[in-house]
Amino acid sequence: MRKLDESAVEDLAVGATVLGTGGGGDPYLGKLMAIGAIRSKGPVTLLDPLEVPDDALVVPVAMMGAPTVLVEKIPRGDEALRCLRMMEAKVGRKVFATISAEAGGVNSTIPLAVAAELGLPVVDADGMGRAFPEIQMTSFHLHGISASPFAMGDEKGNSVLLEVISNKWIEWISRAVTVVMGGSAIIALYPMTGRQVKEASVHNTLSLAEKIGRTLRRAKAENRDPVEQLLQLVHGFKLFKGKVVDVSRRTTGGFARGEALLEGIDEFKSSSLKIQFQNENLIAIRDGRVVASVPDLITVLECETGSPVTTEGLKYGYRVYVTGIPCNPVWRTAKGLETVGPKYFGYEVDYRPVEELAGRST
Amino acid sequence: MRKLDESAVEDLAVGATVLGTGGGGDPYLGKLMAIGAIRSKGPVTLLDPLEVPDDALVVPVAMMGAPTVLVEKIPRGDEALRCLRMMEAKVGRKVFATISAEAGGVNSTIPLAVAAELGLPVVDADGMGRAFPEIQMTSFHLHGISASPFAMGDEKGNSVLLEVISNKWIEWISRAVTVVMGGSAIIALYPMTGRQVKEASVHNTLSLAEKIGRTLRRAKAENRDPVEQLLQLVHGFKLFKGKVVDVSRRTTGGFARGEALLEGIDEFKSSSLKIQFQNENLIAIRDGRVVASVPDLITVLECETGSPVTTEGLKYGYRVYVTGIPCNPVWRTAKGLETVGPKYFGYEVDYRPVEELAGRST
Repeated sequence: MRKLDESAVEDLAVGATVLGTGGGGDPYLGKLMAIGAIRSKGPVTLLDPLEVPDDALVVPVAMMGAPTVLVEKIPRGDEALRCLRMMEAKVGRKVFATISAEAGGVNSTIPLAVAAELGLPVVDADGMGRAFPEIQMTSFHLHGISASPFAMGDEKGNSVLLEVISNKWIEWISRAVTVVMGGSAIIALYPMTGRQVKEASVHNTLSLAEKIGRTLRRAKAENRDPVEQLLQLVHGFKLFKGKVVDVSRRTTGGFARGEALLEGIDEFKSSSLKIQFQNENLIAIRDGRVVASVPDLITVLECETGSPVTTEGLKYGYRVYVTGIPCNPVWRTAKGLETVGPKYFGYEVDYRPVEELAGRST
Repeated sequence: MRKLDESAVEDLAVGATVLGTGGGGDPYLGKLMAIGAIRSKGPVTLLDPLEVPDDALVVPVAMMGAPTVLVEKIPRGDEALRCLRMMEAKVGRKVFATISAEAGGVNSTIPLAVAAELGLPVVDADGMGRAFPEIQMTSFHLHGISASPFAMGDEKGNSVLLEVISNKWIEWISRAVTVVMGGSAIIALYPMTGRQVKEASVHNTLSLAEKIGRTLRRAKAENRDPVEQLLQLVHGFKLFKGKVVDVSRRTTGGFARGEALLEGIDEFKSSSLKIQFQNENLIAIRDGRVVASVPDLITVLECETGSPVTTEGLKYGYRVYVTGIPCNPVWRTAKGLETVGPKYFGYEVDYRPVEELAGRST
């Protein structure tokens, strides 16, 4: 157990953008929400998953929808509370702690804001070890935990509770509701016991995000190469260095979808790289060959500062590194790949680990 | 208070198709459900609205979605029960009686099936005095009653509970959920007190539907003109007699939309008539001039038998009468016309009562 203060949240938000692989929502807003709540209510208690009582009720809270929308559609603040109250009424128990559904972007800091506001602890873990675009794409789902009951709230005051027969049905119905709500919503889902958290979550990912943020910050301060420092920390690979020459992006069906084209510079001169995304970066294709794909992490960082860049932040002219980071092993199982492998997203390629793809080629 | 038996339901289902003005769902399925339930559990108690205790909880149950879908997507039977249970859990009280949300088609008989199954009485009233396509188009809404909490269930076992800031938001969110659920869903909505039922419902519409059905049946048996008998009973007008020469119909956004073209016969020879519909018939245009529009009822009946024809039953070659029936006065108020007048549906015409339009022209 330890306390997270403002400066910890600053680092954590940067690290979460790295783990967000382009998606998970711009962490800036989530960071402001968390810091605002911590300023008024005090630091947040971060619990190691092993410290959570086996029978405690733990409920993730998150933002659902297109990150492109969230930046213009600010939560009014009570959505998460309404969602947790609906969940408590349905489950018939009080929430003991909250947890991140995904360790990416806004969804790693929104639970901190909610926790500070309500005086709840946050579990140092999440359901992905990164960000993914759909509700059933969690380690919780892989462990057979239901995302239902599932509570949703919007900034206008609308609330919806789903009790649904499968996690794919949660995704289908809640996505349609999110679109009607204007493209984003706050959700509470996957109610779990402490025992389930221990078994089914990816442990210590908030601490990892904080460590990543701290590493990038210190490297900059100490004039060391931030990207090299990051790759050492997360056992990642440099897939490309280049300039963004084209970005196409559309917000459709509740997702931000599109692709970015990069022209190589320095050691990658005369190469080109294409990244396709659905909220998160899904696949990186260099000179016609896949060099990384889901479920491995594809993260874009500014050359100069090492700052991670979200898909909605990608702009013409940016000079960036594209990095590949091995995903949590849970995603490399048969059920993991069926849930989030390249084929699920419509790519007719077999998944190969980034270590193998990047090892062969650089 | 009286009992509705099988033969009453037969008549009622036919009358409900007349009041359904083309929509409300093919009553055949709802009739089978109601008769099946009455056979196994006994006749249904029909209460006059004035007999309902002021503080009793009354909850309408209905089918939502495109009637074109319902005929191929049979309810599994427990959806309404699940919806009422969700409603009771939310409101914190037991349901005393159910009631029809609309006196049209399947939605006049589904409450009978539910009532027989659960041993509840049905109130002899509804929220429209006809059928309309959207959730907020009820006399309950005109009286300021909220459709929320709003429970939805599908035949797969998915359940959704909405608590929403306005009845238009109920329509928007629940319509999107209905589409994802496959185009139709069973709903429980507008929880009301007995006092509200008395004030806000259209009274005795199930009895009216039964009387209409009986009138058509007897006229046929006695070789009298069923359409003439009907028009006398409901103070309606014959707008057209013709042959269906074209029907275009698509199921989109959770509605069956389209139009039918008719060529005149007999006294309407060398005239033509166009009917446009969104689940229900919305407007009838004869030789370029509106002869009836929402909120008045536009009902199509087979020439030979006097049987009412739904929009999904309209077929090339049918010889039909098109009739116009004055709506309940509640719809001719400013708020009524704002809610269901021709302008709401996108027609740039001012509403004029069918008595006036048809009086002028026939």
